[in-house]
Amino acid sequence: MDERVREHAEVLVDWSARAGAGDDVVVDVAEGAHDLAVAVAEVLGERGASVTTLYGSEEVARAYLKGHETAVDEAGDDNGGPTERFGDPTVDLALVEAADVYLRLGGGRNTTATADVDRAVRRAYASTRTEVREARMDTDWVSTVHPTRSLAQQAGMAYEEYRDFVYHAVLRDWESLADEMAEMKAILDAGEEVRIVTERDDAPDTDVTMSIAGRTAVNSAASVAYDSHNLPSGEVFTAPYATEGEVFFDVPMTIEATRVRDVHLVFEDGEVVDFTAESGEEALASILDTDAGARRLGELGIGMNRGIDRFTDSILFDEKMGDTVHLAIGRAYDACLPDGESGNQSAVHVDLISDMSQNSFISVDGEVVQRNGTFRWEDGFEG
Amino acid sequence: MDERVREHAEVLVDWSARAGAGDDVVVDVAEGAHDLAVAVAEVLGERGASVTTLYGSEEVARAYLKGHETAVDEAGDDNGGPTERFGDPTVDLALVEAADVYLRLGGGRNTTATADVDRAVRRAYASTRTEVREARMDTDWVSTVHPTRSLAQQAGMAYEEYRDFVYHAVLRDWESLADEMAEMKAILDAGEEVRIVTERDDAPDTDVTMSIAGRTAVNSAASVAYDSHNLPSGEVFTAPYATEGEVFFDVPMTIEATRVRDVHLVFEDGEVVDFTAESGEEALASILDTDAGARRLGELGIGMNRGIDRFTDSILFDEKMGDTVHLAIGRAYDACLPDGESGNQSAVHVDLISDMSQNSFISVDGEVVQRNGTFRWEDGFEG
Repeated sequence: MDERVREHAEVLVDWSARAGAGDDVVVDVAEGAHDLAVAVAEVLGERGASVTTLYGSEEVARAYLKGHETAVDEAGDDNGGPTERFGDPTVDLALVEAADVYLRLGGGRNTTATADVDRAVRRAYASTRTEVREARMDTDWVSTVHPTRSLAQQAGMAYEEYRDFVYHAVLRDWESLADEMAEMKAILDAGEEVRIVTERDDAPDTDVTMSIAGRTAVNSAASVAYDSHNLPSGEVFTAPYATEGEVFFDVPMTIEATRVRDVHLVFEDGEVVDFTAESGEEALASILDTDAGARRLGELGIGMNRGIDRFTDSILFDEKMGDTVHLAIGRAYDACLPDGESGNQSAVHVDLISDMSQNSFISVDGEVVQRNGTFRWEDGFEG
Repeated sequence: MDERVREHAEVLVDWSARAGAGDDVVVDVAEGAHDLAVAVAEVLGERGASVTTLYGSEEVARAYLKGHETAVDEAGDDNGGPTERFGDPTVDLALVEAADVYLRLGGGRNTTATADVDRAVRRAYASTRTEVREARMDTDWVSTVHPTRSLAQQAGMAYEEYRDFVYHAVLRDWESLADEMAEMKAILDAGEEVRIVTERDDAPDTDVTMSIAGRTAVNSAASVAYDSHNLPSGEVFTAPYATEGEVFFDVPMTIEATRVRDVHLVFEDGEVVDFTAESGEEALASILDTDAGARRLGELGIGMNRGIDRFTDSILFDEKMGDTVHLAIGRAYDACLPDGESGNQSAVHVDLISDMSQNSFISVDGEVVQRNGTFRWEDGFEG
């Protein structure tokens, strides 16, 4: 086995999840992540943790939802839409509530494995599982991916090349990156309003403002000790509200197995009041209709990981890339909110990304903190 | 996909598990059982059940136990054996207790995947999981296998040939077989003592008696409705006690990743007092030392499935084959016991099989019910 698989497992268990003796750890294994699961189980055995492994297969999930569709078709439906008859996720809830740590090892064999599942069915299923998602977020959860051929293909890369890309992003000096990101966190914590501006020749300009007053930014250094739950990470994010203006997202991505490109959102009073997309507009519409919170922002993130040097059509990597910002519609993370206060609630959390490397700036309370991808404290910054 | 995979899933869900709308179903998927998991999820979606999928990977299990060994080695151990420091299986217990149905889809990629794990470590781990096993047996659990190349190899068969073998055994008229087996159940329910005799030229004779008074035989027709939890099945079994005599098991098998052949057990006062094995004697000794119950019988089973026509070194199939009997050391099944009474308790349940087709008979209370593999009610029976 590639020794980097073992190193990945050690970073995941020791730096990211801080899992140790006596911890009850759930490991959720995608179809192609077997080798990483083996390495993670070995490390957890060495640390004295208990391990439960779930099979996080997209093909199994698709089959279950298609079976549901078949039953609904056979039963007939006078209302013009699928009847919802999913049971309560009793077992999933019990297991997540009993877990201290939840490690999601992504990496399937086909990123569009669920492409032919009816969106309404998918949404109905997701809406039955809100409690499970919330309970999972109460654990020390971490999401990572094992490099698979499917993800390499999604990225438009050779398999060997993609593995190098992933391990370059994952096997970093996280402590050092955390120090770099602390400066941006300090600015956002002290700030009240963020403005993001990009001028484009061939697409709508971005000019959007949002309030961050009273919110706490997360220094997302790929460890639960930093309230950071992705490996790799390398972003600073907070939970904005009262969003006003227009945003154009020029980084293409795959959302719920659908290619989405050139999304344009118009916000008034914190809500999306108009939207278009060059591709995937129907999928976007379906997401925005999930619930009331799906039309409000849950996250503003600023990518600061310069070890990620290209877009690979994977949110786990793309949103962390230096020279980018991302906004997520849907659920906000509790870590950004004052104790006991709840932010935007939704069954969805969908990130959209903009390249900030040209004709762009981010300002906080009127002061520019990044222009054309260069931060205020970096060489070459032009205020 | 081979349409027999879908048929297998339907038999498993509808006949065996009787799973339906509102049931909370755990599906435990071995490494090579993906296709069956997909088919089972589809059927469960059609029926309106909830589904949680576990990854039942032997390689992940091995890695965890090897990690434990490494940690113990590094910590040092003055007692000459591995220190036990497995945590409580909190998550596994919570999920099993929340489940109505537990479907184990066997079929790995290497039947000896855990061969190099220290037996004492394996036993220590198993002993921490008694509660999980007991809770699983309180569900409507069913074990089956998806035909894999690894199992074909274990059976000494080509892959296509093995698939035919498995589906021939699984896709049967179970209702009809249940009727045939009812006669043997009636005899055992009414009986008080069973005697099994085989005379051999080249190996020790078998001559063993055991009490079955007060015990209830299970008509194991591959359905929870019959207290039967294997698919395929096709045996009648009960929980004997007060075993006396000697038994020679001439059917070779793989137990805990070790080849075991020609086991000879000597019973006095219900306990194994002497044992030998031509191969795997060390593994057998380790099993017998698990706990006090591991030296007593938990099961007497009479194979009655004539659709299984050869030994394939898989207990799921071998023990159901017509012309065989098997005895299990270790845990007894509650279904065989009077309400509220507990039978033999143990962390293990290991079946051993004898061919009864020649120079053999089974008698109940002195009356021969099978001679040389032919039952009393079959043509050609010689009382």
